[in-house]
Amino acid sequence: MEKYKLVIIGGDAAGMTAASKVRRQNDDCEIVVFEKSEFVSYSACGIPYFISGKVTSSEELIVRTPEEFIKKHKIDTRILHEVIEVDTDKNRVLVYKADDKTQFWETYDKLLIATGGKAYCPDVKNRDADGIFGISTLRSGIKVDNFIKAKKPKTAVIVGGGYIGLEMAEALLIKGLKVSLVNRSEEIMNTLDPDMGALVNKAMKNLGVEIYVKEELKDFEADENGVTAVVTDKRTLKTDLVILGMGTSPNTAFLKNSKIKLDEKGAVVVAKTQRTNIRNVWSAGDCATTTHLVTKKPFYIALGTVANKTGLVAGKNISGGNAVFPGVVGTAVCKICVFEVARTGLLEKQLQKLNIDYVAAMIKTKSRAGYYPDSKDIYVKLIAEKKTGRLLGGQIIGEEGAAKRIDVLATALTYKLTLRNIIDLDLSYAPPFSPVWDPVQTAARKLITQLKK
Amino acid sequence: MEKYKLVIIGGDAAGMTAASKVRRQNDDCEIVVFEKSEFVSYSACGIPYFISGKVTSSEELIVRTPEEFIKKHKIDTRILHEVIEVDTDKNRVLVYKADDKTQFWETYDKLLIATGGKAYCPDVKNRDADGIFGISTLRSGIKVDNFIKAKKPKTAVIVGGGYIGLEMAEALLIKGLKVSLVNRSEEIMNTLDPDMGALVNKAMKNLGVEIYVKEELKDFEADENGVTAVVTDKRTLKTDLVILGMGTSPNTAFLKNSKIKLDEKGAVVVAKTQRTNIRNVWSAGDCATTTHLVTKKPFYIALGTVANKTGLVAGKNISGGNAVFPGVVGTAVCKICVFEVARTGLLEKQLQKLNIDYVAAMIKTKSRAGYYPDSKDIYVKLIAEKKTGRLLGGQIIGEEGAAKRIDVLATALTYKLTLRNIIDLDLSYAPPFSPVWDPVQTAARKLITQLKK
Repeated sequence: MEKYKLVIIGGDAAGMTAASKVRRQNDDCEIVVFEKSEFVSYSACGIPYFISGKVTSSEELIVRTPEEFIKKHKIDTRILHEVIEVDTDKNRVLVYKADDKTQFWETYDKLLIATGGKAYCPDVKNRDADGIFGISTLRSGIKVDNFIKAKKPKTAVIVGGGYIGLEMAEALLIKGLKVSLVNRSEEIMNTLDPDMGALVNKAMKNLGVEIYVKEELKDFEADENGVTAVVTDKRTLKTDLVILGMGTSPNTAFLKNSKIKLDEKGAVVVAKTQRTNIRNVWSAGDCATTTHLVTKKPFYIALGTVANKTGLVAGKNISGGNAVFPGVVGTAVCKICVFEVARTGLLEKQLQKLNIDYVAAMIKTKSRAGYYPDSKDIYVKLIAEKKTGRLLGGQIIGEEGAAKRIDVLATALTYKLTLRNIIDLDLSYAPPFSPVWDPVQTAARKLITQLKK
Repeated sequence: MEKYKLVIIGGDAAGMTAASKVRRQNDDCEIVVFEKSEFVSYSACGIPYFISGKVTSSEELIVRTPEEFIKKHKIDTRILHEVIEVDTDKNRVLVYKADDKTQFWETYDKLLIATGGKAYCPDVKNRDADGIFGISTLRSGIKVDNFIKAKKPKTAVIVGGGYIGLEMAEALLIKGLKVSLVNRSEEIMNTLDPDMGALVNKAMKNLGVEIYVKEELKDFEADENGVTAVVTDKRTLKTDLVILGMGTSPNTAFLKNSKIKLDEKGAVVVAKTQRTNIRNVWSAGDCATTTHLVTKKPFYIALGTVANKTGLVAGKNISGGNAVFPGVVGTAVCKICVFEVARTGLLEKQLQKLNIDYVAAMIKTKSRAGYYPDSKDIYVKLIAEKKTGRLLGGQIIGEEGAAKRIDVLATALTYKLTLRNIIDLDLSYAPPFSPVWDPVQTAARKLITQLKK
């Protein structure tokens, strides 16, 4: 077995998946993990459900504790250790220890950067006030939970209409708060086309969320107890609690002075092997770039699936393997109370930018056979290349059973299937599950007629 | 517009889909439909839900009435007209009229055979006794419903463990009957491998169904009021009601003396255009063969999806088009109370027969993130070609959200994806919908390790 010392920066999905993989492949190497918070190996995606109380304890979100990694897997897992600088010339990282506020250099033979992402917030007044929370780490989730228990807020404002914002809206509605949402563009969820986004707006309003669109965050107001209001370019919204939902940015400020290449958003640029531009340095998860399989261009997306998969690929390659993560098609799903929202591929506005001639159609049908009890409305929008009929994107909104239908479209996108191919797929049918023509096929049937025009 | 006279034999999914398509393409041609029963254009798949009372009236299963076809679409729809002979030399069919018990010859320029299938029953004693029902037409469904209302049966025996048998078991349990099931092989649902079938056996037993496996139907006992018992090679089961669930056979007895080619099961042999061996004669739906896209061989399957799709292809081609129905991968789903069963592709025993070297693995995981409320067990079995890792079959059993996951595997089978390809798919994830690795990917990850051995 090759003997080397692997240092991993960041102990959640990507980092610990890689650490475990390397240990399974090589019992002899030394593995050191530096994690800034007190938690490793947890489901960040589960935080909204812990805050809502659907998941009763934050411990349920933890897959493995630092002690388990240390004892069972001989992975030297050091929590409350933050890496603040990387020196690739000398193969070493500078570590800040939170408990005694000291710092030290640690050397490595191989390095994995897996620091994840954090909630984006523009540089506005009072952005660090108490009561303003981004949801990206278990620590941040516990802080929100403690805040709600201690301060008993009655109102909350979500700034931004991304997935985490919507999931947190559900959580806070369940906790009995009056929830408002401020969004820069006309429709919330800008990962959908406006016609589908409008359905989400409507659904959120029906759930009782106050929505303010086409309003830009200007400032926060705060007093000695913390945040008191969100100020937009149109109004001041008094509030007890603010959730940042404007998207995720990579946690890579500590790499600014290193030789490791970052993209314009600060994400670590990696090849499909998860290698960076520096020999013996890999990166994986929400801090790194990936590839979009439809545009073939570099793409940034912060998702638990990608973190797990890229962590595994990094782990294999650090162990001398030759694995690749081919990339993503931009699949994402989100649940807000009874509503399910799903998307994959490209949006109309992205295709316009790329100068691709496309056709698009939206259909409304039922999730089950029309006569079957509890059959619900389901909306499917498909976008295809005009010349070839190749699928370029899909969006689905509905209730129970809507979201997971996106997986067929994600598969179709990856393998360049046309609308005709989708219509011909042997998809499953029985009255409790679907109409005879699955909704994605009904959408393809509608859209294919536009190709012929 | 080409002027011709189209005769269609059979007025359900395939026949009426074709009729409607032809009418949309050509306003001038004459279309005559002969339907043996009093109903056209209904969902046969919905019958078990009508019997259970989930669907309150048989009328809800009817998509369009004969009158609608006659008046709105100028389709001469003649119910209670049974075609009893086809003479392709003289381009004519012999029709039996049930009301006045007369018969007449009707000529055609083009002919579509869409007579569907019926519940298979071996030639045993008392097979025509009252109280023994196959479920294949709306008429048969209404008969069962009337029988239950009039005779108030307390016990039922399902003979055979196919989809309809299982769906009828659910329906009769809901109606409060004591239900037994007799099955020839060791596991019910022989469209699953025995290891997955065993899970269905267990689920059925937990629902309160008495199961007798490895028992062959020998006879029925009957008195002047109808059936009184099912006799197997091992026992006599007293019963008030019998449901035939041994599969479907094509309704093609009336073609025996025609020149139209049938396969050994009696299904009309068709090309991918739905053409038969005779010029100007097409066939579609449960009475015709199709192609299995994995084996590339002719295949017989009775399914509502296939009937609709092949009816549409026949309609296009009758109108002078050039459409094809490429075939199926054998996808089917079934719900029995809370349990969902899904399958696609080939079984182990089929691969053994074909002398294909394969690997197979079954996993048990969760339908949602483990910590999310109501996360249920889900079992996924995958089978792949040993040499290439290409997927050859998949089976899924679980509760809510299990069945529709088969669609990704059906797509993967159609496009010859390997286990590696499946692992790399950008499938959707959020805690309410899936674990981070979708169950089908977890199964692929387990199975891929066996390729390396």
